[in-house]
Amino acid sequence: MNQPIVRPSTAADRAGIRRILLHSGLFGPSDADCVDEMFGHSLAKPTPDNYRFLSGWLDGSMSGFACYGQEALAHGTWGLFWVCTLPEARGRGLGGALLREAVRVATAEGGRLMVIYTSSTAPYAAARRLYESRGFARVAVIPEYYNRGDDLFIYLRPLQTAPPASSPETPDLKGPGVLS
Amino acid sequence: MNQPIVRPSTAADRAGIRRILLHSGLFGPSDADCVDEMFGHSLAKPTPDNYRFLSGWLDGSMSGFACYGQEALAHGTWGLFWVCTLPEARGRGLGGALLREAVRVATAEGGRLMVIYTSSTAPYAAARRLYESRGFARVAVIPEYYNRGDDLFIYLRPLQTAPPASSPETPDLKGPGVLS
Repeated sequence: MNQPIVRPSTAADRAGIRRILLHSGLFGPSDADCVDEMFGHSLAKPTPDNYRFLSGWLDGSMSGFACYGQEALAHGTWGLFWVCTLPEARGRGLGGALLREAVRVATAEGGRLMVIYTSSTAPYAAARRLYESRGFARVAVIPEYYNRGDDLFIYLRPLQTAPPASSPETPDLKGPGVLS
Repeated sequence: MNQPIVRPSTAADRAGIRRILLHSGLFGPSDADCVDEMFGHSLAKPTPDNYRFLSGWLDGSMSGFACYGQEALAHGTWGLFWVCTLPEARGRGLGGALLREAVRVATAEGGRLMVIYTSSTAPYAAARRLYESRGFARVAVIPEYYNRGDDLFIYLRPLQTAPPASSPETPDLKGPGVLS
């Protein structure tokens, strides 16, 4: 089993991103359309303040992606807008590698904070555990934001500092397979 | 003194929106660029799920605007993204009239909730009082989101129900001057 590889997405990854969303078991066509539009914006205008995409590969196959970037109107605050992996790729550190690379870039570019918006529902439990294991704390709940019975959870992590000692980075994500 | 007039913005209002932001005392050129881009999107693709703009007029002069719309990825949740009036227009009910019209449209289109994102700082105190007077409750704080010492406050109001009896609509905003 090879380490995950993470690199900035290219135009050639566009169809792969849609495929990953549609096969994720978590998202549907309207989500795929939304992400595709964001990807289109990022290709058309690859400026520092636009969305950024990362593609994640396992065993030569694109199996996940992340979308992150600076939050508009805020100073030094970055958002992780999407992290998604294929079901068959889960448990191999790909989501963690994508998250780690987004945090690395945001920190390197002087970011102060990273926020993550996610759902309170059961299918997102693994994602929430990942965020919590990487130093993100849940700082807000917006009741029924996504839908009835589906709250918005907002996670926050300071950048420029190591995550708390109680939540170390998973060692196997630090291997040479994670490109920067 | 005439009642404020509120109507959907047209392409002819684009320069006025920028002027209002730049003279608001609250926002700067980067905010104006951001709003202008949103306005461009809404003109290019005036679909139900895109940003919507309202222009507010006092005594024949465009003196405020609002930007609102459905929150992407949520079901029945609307956001009020911008409400801005010129300093000389304040205290005449224009901000309230813009807010009221956004709530009216969102409710008429079946919205469940409206969220407002705003700053914790002193210059936004009047805006926060307006939101609180119209049934919006502060449900979340994201510390230092906008900048050091500048938190994000998130306000929420259920739609499809009248605001609480303790915060009635201001009667003078219900006059015939508020167009729909």
